[in-house]
Amino acid sequence: MGRWEPDARGRLAQAAMELYIERGFEQATVAEIARRAGLTERTFFRHFTDKREVLFAGSSSLEELLVETVAKAPPNLSPMDAAAAGLEAAGTLLQERRAFARQRQAVIAANPDLQERELIKLASLAAALARTLRVRGAGDTAADLVAEVSIAVFRIAFQNWVDDASQRDLPQLIRESLQELKAVTSGV
Amino acid sequence: MGRWEPDARGRLAQAAMELYIERGFEQATVAEIARRAGLTERTFFRHFTDKREVLFAGSSSLEELLVETVAKAPPNLSPMDAAAAGLEAAGTLLQERRAFARQRQAVIAANPDLQERELIKLASLAAALARTLRVRGAGDTAADLVAEVSIAVFRIAFQNWVDDASQRDLPQLIRESLQELKAVTSGV
Repeated sequence: MGRWEPDARGRLAQAAMELYIERGFEQATVAEIARRAGLTERTFFRHFTDKREVLFAGSSSLEELLVETVAKAPPNLSPMDAAAAGLEAAGTLLQERRAFARQRQAVIAANPDLQERELIKLASLAAALARTLRVRGAGDTAADLVAEVSIAVFRIAFQNWVDDASQRDLPQLIRESLQELKAVTSGV
Repeated sequence: MGRWEPDARGRLAQAAMELYIERGFEQATVAEIARRAGLTERTFFRHFTDKREVLFAGSSSLEELLVETVAKAPPNLSPMDAAAAGLEAAGTLLQERRAFARQRQAVIAANPDLQERELIKLASLAAALARTLRVRGAGDTAADLVAEVSIAVFRIAFQNWVDDASQRDLPQLIRESLQELKAVTSGV
């Protein structure tokens, strides 16, 4: 963002994440973040509304990618398959940011307020996905179910990816979770 | 609760709900709630920690019933079928409290803080269900998936029940959502 400091945003995000882990999210200040990134507080506020925004700014681009992929999926795909295409695209995006995603998860896990915020963001992701599925022609209940279930699959695959020592990649874990979803629900 | 005022709790809950709907959750005071119920503020605080507790006190008994039903379900049931038995028990309990459940939903829908609280309660319900499924022998990912998916089914059936003009009962709507879940995931 901004021609004047090409990677200021990335440097600020990285400095913030390090401080959140070293000192805790509550304790870290914007002044410290800016200092560690070698930038000013003013520059911080040009890129982020506040400390929390560093952790959640990515949610909007993730939502956008998910929704666009689902909207543009071939019309003959079932709602679940269209959603799966969206999850895979989101997983591919996050896969490139593994180190950041792991640090972020550790910061959120240590702070109940941030966990609440994450739940709200995930609920909003599910609502956006359900709307997109309705536009594709899914019925109300089917759209809601597929959306909620897809976000559940995504969360669980993401958690396994973050915890995982085996280095499997996130899109692969998402496909495995979708297969397991099919297995666990087939007996209903 | 308490031998001294056999239905004080119920009267307080009903008075609170009426005031939350008439005046909004934020505006209603404990003094007004107690007055409308013909009781004292002290009695209110013997039954509820605060105004919000009136809306969420039922979550604990719902969680308890869900978890106990799943824990005691026949050991040969699959995780999804055991969870379905728990959902049906929870649905049967709520079915008896339809008027209260509908009012409660309207109050929560009007207030973002209460919506957040509800999301947190549902996440805690999913976590409790996942733990119970693990104790029954489900693998980690299967337990998480079944738990998340079950709570999604429950939420959607509950929302349809609250919105529904057709007066279908909640356990029936839960069964229908489970069938639809099977249908939407079978093509994965």
